Amino acid sequence: MGESTLVSDNTQAGRRTIIASVVQTCSARYSVKNTLKKLEDLVSEGKGRHGSQLMVFPEAFIGGYPKFSTFGTVIGERSPEGREEFLRYHSAAVDIPSPVISSIERISKTYGAFLVVGVIERDHGTLYCTVIFVDPELGYVGKHRKLAPTALERVIWGQGDAKTLSVVQKSFGRVEAQLTAAICWENYMPLLRSYYYSKASGSHIYCAPTVDTRTEWQSTMQHVALEGRCFVLSACQFAQEKDYPADHAVKNPEGRGDVNVMIRGGSVIISPLGKVLAGPMYDQEGILTAELDMDDIVRGKFDLDVAGHYARPDIFQLVVNGAKDG
Amino acid sequence: MGESTLVSDNTQAGRRTIIASVVQTCSARYSVKNTLKKLEDLVSEGKGRHGSQLMVFPEAFIGGYPKFSTFGTVIGERSPEGREEFLRYHSAAVDIPSPVISSIERISKTYGAFLVVGVIERDHGTLYCTVIFVDPELGYVGKHRKLAPTALERVIWGQGDAKTLSVVQKSFGRVEAQLTAAICWENYMPLLRSYYYSKASGSHIYCAPTVDTRTEWQSTMQHVALEGRCFVLSACQFAQEKDYPADHAVKNPEGRGDVNVMIRGGSVIISPLGKVLAGPMYDQEGILTAELDMDDIVRGKFDLDVAGHYARPDIFQLVVNGAKDG
Amino acid sequence: MGESTLVSDNTQAGRRTIIASVVQTCSARYSVKNTLKKLEDLVSEGKGRHGSQLMVFPEAFIGGYPKFSTFGTVIGERSPEGREEFLRYHSAAVDIPSPVISSIERISKTYGAFLVVGVIERDHGTLYCTVIFVDPELGYVGKHRKLAPTALERVIWGQGDAKTLSVVQKSFGRVEAQLTAAICWENYMPLLRSYYYSKASGSHIYCAPTVDTRTEWQSTMQHVALEGRCFVLSACQFAQEKDYPADHAVKNPEGRGDVNVMIRGGSVIISPLGKVLAGPMYDQEGILTAELDMDDIVRGKFDLDVAGHYARPDIFQLVVNGAKDG
Amino acid sequence: MGESTLVSDNTQAGRRTIIASVVQTCSARYSVKNTLKKLEDLVSEGKGRHGSQLMVFPEAFIGGYPKFSTFGTVIGERSPEGREEFLRYHSAAVDIPSPVISSIERISKTYGAFLVVGVIERDHGTLYCTVIFVDPELGYVGKHRKLAPTALERVIWGQGDAKTLSVVQKSFGRVEAQLTAAICWENYMPLLRSYYYSKASGSHIYCAPTVDTRTEWQSTMQHVALEGRCFVLSACQFAQEKDYPADHAVKNPEGRGDVNVMIRGGSVIISPLGKVLAGPMYDQEGILTAELDMDDIVRGKFDLDVAGHYARPDIFQLVVNGAKDG
Amino acid sequence: MGESTLVSDNTQAGRRTIIASVVQTCSARYSVKNTLKKLEDLVSEGKGRHGSQLMVFPEAFIGGYPKFSTFGTVIGERSPEGREEFLRYHSAAVDIPSPVISSIERISKTYGAFLVVGVIERDHGTLYCTVIFVDPELGYVGKHRKLAPTALERVIWGQGDAKTLSVVQKSFGRVEAQLTAAICWENYMPLLRSYYYSKASGSHIYCAPTVDTRTEWQSTMQHVALEGRCFVLSACQFAQEKDYPADHAVKNPEGRGDVNVMIRGGSVIISPLGKVLAGPMYDQEGILTAELDMDDIVRGKFDLDVAGHYARPDIFQLVVNGAKDG
Amino acid sequence: MGESTLVSDNTQAGRRTIIASVVQTCSARYSVKNTLKKLEDLVSEGKGRHGSQLMVFPEAFIGGYPKFSTFGTVIGERSPEGREEFLRYHSAAVDIPSPVISSIERISKTYGAFLVVGVIERDHGTLYCTVIFVDPELGYVGKHRKLAPTALERVIWGQGDAKTLSVVQKSFGRVEAQLTAAICWENYMPLLRSYYYSKASGSHIYCAPTVDTRTEWQSTMQHVALEGRCFVLSACQFAQEKDYPADHAVKNPEGRGDVNVMIRGGSVIISPLGKVLAGPMYDQEGILTAELDMDDIVRGKFDLDVAGHYARPDIFQLVVNGAKDG
Repeated sequence: MGESTLVSDNTQAGRRTIIASVVQTCSARYSVKNTLKKLEDLVSEGKGRHGSQLMVFPEAFIGGYPKFSTFGTVIGERSPEGREEFLRYHSAAVDIPSPVISSIERISKTYGAFLVVGVIERDHGTLYCTVIFVDPELGYVGKHRKLAPTALERVIWGQGDAKTLSVVQKSFGRVEAQLTAAICWENYMPLLRSYYYSKASGSHIYCAPTVDTRTEWQSTMQHVALEGRCFVLSACQFAQEKDYPADHAVKNPEGRGDVNVMIRGGSVIISPLGKVLAGPMYDQEGILTAELDMDDIVRGKFDLDVAGHYARPDIFQLVVNGAKDG
Repeated sequence: MGESTLVSDNTQAGRRTIIASVVQTCSARYSVKNTLKKLEDLVSEGKGRHGSQLMVFPEAFIGGYPKFSTFGTVIGERSPEGREEFLRYHSAAVDIPSPVISSIERISKTYGAFLVVGVIERDHGTLYCTVIFVDPELGYVGKHRKLAPTALERVIWGQGDAKTLSVVQKSFGRVEAQLTAAICWENYMPLLRSYYYSKASGSHIYCAPTVDTRTEWQSTMQHVALEGRCFVLSACQFAQEKDYPADHAVKNPEGRGDVNVMIRGGSVIISPLGKVLAGPMYDQEGILTAELDMDDIVRGKFDLDVAGHYARPDIFQLVVNGAKDG
Repeated sequence: MGESTLVSDNTQAGRRTIIASVVQTCSARYSVKNTLKKLEDLVSEGKGRHGSQLMVFPEAFIGGYPKFSTFGTVIGERSPEGREEFLRYHSAAVDIPSPVISSIERISKTYGAFLVVGVIERDHGTLYCTVIFVDPELGYVGKHRKLAPTALERVIWGQGDAKTLSVVQKSFGRVEAQLTAAICWENYMPLLRSYYYSKASGSHIYCAPTVDTRTEWQSTMQHVALEGRCFVLSACQFAQEKDYPADHAVKNPEGRGDVNVMIRGGSVIISPLGKVLAGPMYDQEGILTAELDMDDIVRGKFDLDVAGHYARPDIFQLVVNGAKDG
Repeated sequence: MGESTLVSDNTQAGRRTIIASVVQTCSARYSVKNTLKKLEDLVSEGKGRHGSQLMVFPEAFIGGYPKFSTFGTVIGERSPEGREEFLRYHSAAVDIPSPVISSIERISKTYGAFLVVGVIERDHGTLYCTVIFVDPELGYVGKHRKLAPTALERVIWGQGDAKTLSVVQKSFGRVEAQLTAAICWENYMPLLRSYYYSKASGSHIYCAPTVDTRTEWQSTMQHVALEGRCFVLSACQFAQEKDYPADHAVKNPEGRGDVNVMIRGGSVIISPLGKVLAGPMYDQEGILTAELDMDDIVRGKFDLDVAGHYARPDIFQLVVNGAKDG
Repeated sequence: MGESTLVSDNTQAGRRTIIASVVQTCSARYSVKNTLKKLEDLVSEGKGRHGSQLMVFPEAFIGGYPKFSTFGTVIGERSPEGREEFLRYHSAAVDIPSPVISSIERISKTYGAFLVVGVIERDHGTLYCTVIFVDPELGYVGKHRKLAPTALERVIWGQGDAKTLSVVQKSFGRVEAQLTAAICWENYMPLLRSYYYSKASGSHIYCAPTVDTRTEWQSTMQHVALEGRCFVLSACQFAQEKDYPADHAVKNPEGRGDVNVMIRGGSVIISPLGKVLAGPMYDQEGILTAELDMDDIVRGKFDLDVAGHYARPDIFQLVVNGAKDG
Repeated sequence: MGESTLVSDNTQAGRRTIIASVVQTCSARYSVKNTLKKLEDLVSEGKGRHGSQLMVFPEAFIGGYPKFSTFGTVIGERSPEGREEFLRYHSAAVDIPSPVISSIERISKTYGAFLVVGVIERDHGTLYCTVIFVDPELGYVGKHRKLAPTALERVIWGQGDAKTLSVVQKSFGRVEAQLTAAICWENYMPLLRSYYYSKASGSHIYCAPTVDTRTEWQSTMQHVALEGRCFVLSACQFAQEKDYPADHAVKNPEGRGDVNVMIRGGSVIISPLGKVLAGPMYDQEGILTAELDMDDIVRGKFDLDVAGHYARPDIFQLVVNGAKDG
């Protein structure tokens, strides 16, 4: 006789868990080739030592995050040097699809890990801060482009739109998950989060690749987990001066040195009831891993379901123009 | 020459009747599989022994009604044990659509009976107390989610909205019927009833799945039949301690026992002029059946039609936000 | 220091009760003068023997209910004899204001009882089936005209409109009450009841003067009390052939006799939780009295408040055209 | 060459006329099928022998006018027999739309005649006394429900509202007309007539289907024509005992007979200056026909235009709630 | 004990009647003095021979109706002769108050008759076609100015306004009446009539002074009585050439002669059920008298009360700007 | 000289600051009278010792938060004892307006402090968890009713609607502020917060009265300040067993004692850039005070303005039904 698919009959035994990791790392001096090598090494480690089924990499991992650069811009002026810098940065970005994407698909398949990876996406003349979703069986299955770059990022990255508000379905064995991504300060967009909550409320793994290293970031991650009753996986970059081209800007030009910290990290994994499962980790590269008990989502929704019994749809309706599923 | 379809030319012979049943039963210890088995047995009996064309099952028949439980809530606190109980209850609920719905469709088709069944509906993290309508030819044709859970039910069930104020059209041979459902104390919502009366006033079969076992419930059912000039089919649960998981709450914890009555029933069928056609039945499982003479509706509307000649639309207008047909 | 007026501070002692009666009686052969005499005698008895602070009299008590008459009407024809009967009936009706109203005000004041009295109201050429509210201190304070006469009543009575949807405020000592009236089958108008519930939900005494003597009426009264969480005071006529003019219609013309029952009664008083406090009384004139514990209204609203926490105003809005307070 | 549509250029030849008929007839023993047969025969005759472009049929032609019946009602009581009679009457009524309406559309189209037909309309549990407008080219184009049934009619028919105050536009060749309908004693509602005058004042054909056979009816028809400066087409029923079911009520039960006159007629056609163009016809079935010179309307408005130069809008404003055009 | 004032208790004996007359006459060659003499003679006769308590005189009785005159006007031109004619006409008119009014008050008091008299009222430079109401006890109690003069009347008379929509209350012994006046074609103003019906619907005596002598006028008078369920008293002028100044216009100038009929009459008295009680009288001066049984109004309202049970105030509201009582 | 109101001219001297407090306290054993006494004492202290211009009190300060009670409810049952407890709780609630509100207005005026106070509001039969805004000069200026009670609170409190999404404008000297309130877990409603951000984005003081004492609450408060770039003032209750009626529920019934902590506090004040200005305070009553530099709001909006440059209105539109300002 047929049975409901989402959740097993309660008379069955067994916990419904997923092993997931966030990887704190950075790109290799804007070299795509070398960064892909780092990616493979880290996936190998995550799988081999942690048994990770799902690994989240930071914002701009492939392509790089040009911390401290101004790209030669002042109000009303751009410099030739800035244009050259942009050209270099553009050349380090990734087309979708492309051989780079194929390489990532191969890594995912080889190690049997679902990958969520921050990349700088090149779409002709414009760059986007993008996250890609790569399934070990299906390959590339979706992406999300950052909707609202912050401050000077607006000089180098374009804005995403609703077509990449991806909610990716994935079965880890008999455990279903729905994955979304919000990049850096997109996490401060309550309407974006609300949309994700409404689409992925049953088994939501919320990925938050970032380069935000403030202590306050932890509050936001914890809040998002509590508000959305979802697992939050935030992967931040850890980068030092040596990870950038030699002429790259730094904070204190007078005190240059390979080990100067450019981005200090802060990766973390949090449960739907706000419990910190791993991290936060600062001042080092590394992999944080946790076992996600997917039933914690329902345990949490018992008293708070912002897209369900706590929603007040009679008062608030969120209209999302252009999303694939309305 | 063409003729009006709703009622045959008065020179034609024949009564316009429907054989309808209400089933007094309960779910099987929160097991969806076993409860579906009970459903099939009862539909088989209703069809085989009573010839029922239409069968109404109680509120929360599939999924179960957690009588006497508190889910560990007190004002201001929820307990981990309550969350576990909610997780178990959540896992026994039904997605729409899902294989469970398909099973009910198959049963309806096999026995040729239209089914109105109370289920606990799972929509991601929120549960709803829902009634589904299943047509033997068309399969699932609509649902109604309870708009206003009562008291502690508000902790475990979300609120329905106007999108599920279903009025389901069904031809039983040459006899037309319009079916609606109001669950338990929704029957005390005069504006909900008014809406149903206005949409289904011609051939209204009003289904009232419930777990209310008070004697006063009979007055309310009789009143609704008289007020709406409709047939009222109220199916209540009959449940004993043995029908619940072993650790479930009971009224008097010191006097546990398999045959302890948890919900005592009170199912009943009433005609549009307020005549009790079958029941009320208490303290046992069973099937009540009656032949509904659909012309009694017009006989009753002769002197009272609350959505027609008795309406005073010049004074009272009921606005229903979000209903499919305004 | 000032305190809230509606309910005393919970540290204060004392119950908040009202002594209320429903009077089962009839008019005196269409004689206004003699019917006023009956009114005075009954108010005297209600106050003297029962201590009533509030007395409800039946529909059409003054003016009379012409049971079994047809006023000479068939479809498409009126007879001169019917016009004469209407003229007689018209002459027994009451203008508002008029000396008849003044007499009722005097009776109310003399005995210190608030009176709710069914009258046939004359407004030039049209008659209305009206209930008046008379305060012992303020005199006449409002009226309600029946909105929807039933069946043949539509030939002799006009329709009321929203201007007389009165909700009358009255202090019985330190106990506040809000009185409304719904006459006979107006009690089957869910939108009218909903309006009253919304306006008088705090301390609602719902008066239901009637001439409906069916047993089913009791279900409706009990339902209204439960649905509205209000006290229901239903006063029905008890009338015999001797109470009508000698030539008045009767049910069985061949078996005339002074004691033939024309209207058999059925008055009743019910609490907000559906408990029958007095009655139903049949086959005799008489006064039913009960002590109304006004706190029962809040006790009942705890789990059902159809104009409050159970209302779903997001879905249902009731527009009432022309009511004094919107 | 451009033309004013209201009145023809006086240099052009030709009169602006319409051939119109009123049909004095009745329904066929409540059989919809047989009455449709009569309708077709009469339209055929009206078109064939009279050349009618517009034909008006009496009130309740389809569905029937239950003259002399009481439907078992006395004040305060309804009988089971009356409910059965209502059920029979209900079953002979017409839904809009329905195959019956389609049949009338076909007849209108076949014979090329615009039809104004009195029908008993069924809207779920309530019946209405309705007039439908059927255009030979467009089919059903509108209806009007009687606003105020008279006396005992209030027991069997509901009240129309402002949504069916139809003013139907029709071109008969190059001659424009605006058609309205007022049924029986609606013709005594000065505010309804005023509304029609105000909306159809240019080329008003005022249809008055009725069953009123008093001689005084002729005064009212003549007055309406004069007051409104419109053509008045009043079609009355002529019915005999044989036209009713065998058990139907009659005036003098002792003297039954097939040829007993139940409704004697009185159909008439009157011009805007009060000239009787055809009829009144009594005591027979038949068709009255006249040629309507539409310029007579303007001739009449020269000295009286109640919605124009004679209106005094500074003093009198008529508010019509809920009409389609305010 | 107090009793209602409008209608006596039905156990009292006696009919409620008023003796009323309409006077068919004309003014005396524009001489106010001589016309007052005619007035006194006619009142004396009406009282002495007929016992009239109420007498209605024609439109423009005092001041005169200048039949057939053009006052020298053509489109775009007025002649000096026309101005002289207006001056003469102006000098024959009546100020209110004035000694002429006092004279009429004296006549009313002397003979004990209530008078309703058509006068040409002078208000500085403008003339109005007015009706005055004179009570034998109270003297002048009100007036009504014609709202809409017809055709060429608009050259000599101004328009009245809502301040003179008088409804005059009068007790004839123990019988109450409410009197209104509509002059000539004001009777074709349905909104004016509706206003009067709404204000005087209980005991309405509707006065219709006129100079309209068409046969169709009778239809309108009968219709108004039926529609308003009121007594209609229409007094028309009978005038011959000798009743005008010698140089006054006539219809056929070639055939002048003192007995030439200028205005042929048509006065009539009609009951609320449309029965002609007296008249119509043509081709002579004279007094028509009838006994008005005021209970006929209620007998008539039984099945039609256009301002009460037949009104549909939910649909139609008549706003009357500037009337004394709204 | 003209000034921009939002931000002061940078050439002028002076900071734009407001002295604000949050008060950690509780109600006095459900006594309104005694709780008002506490309110006055605390306002006096806040003003006298801290100079507070704005004081925020906790959720349910007046009326009380019945922590640990179940009101006798289990799924499917309510007990008489629960109804009595509800009656007691209902009697301790506050009508708006009422003398209690007047008292608070008087206190606000006396001490010159703007007050934001959590109250249990009584609206006839339903209670709401409400926050009121009281201006020292204008008195009561608005309220907010909690939209979504949590868990068992749904048994005792109704749901607010959009009519009380108040944004209150207040000038503190020359410094403008816009105040809003979100109560307890309303702070987890991203669409509610988004609405407030959109309406009060210039000078937003976000009040968060609560009884949530979890450590995680601090993350949410910090996140809200960062996300909305607003000041967050969260006032939590501190309550002990002695602050409840003697028979009230406690967590561990076996270990009762006056000093048992029922609600431990956690009040806090946070700046728009996420800096904790005061608190969090636990395990005591007390007043936290901070000086709010209103220019910090603009400083924060420089790089994040969720209702402005960070909003993406092309993608996301929030529809709010029924709010006063759309």
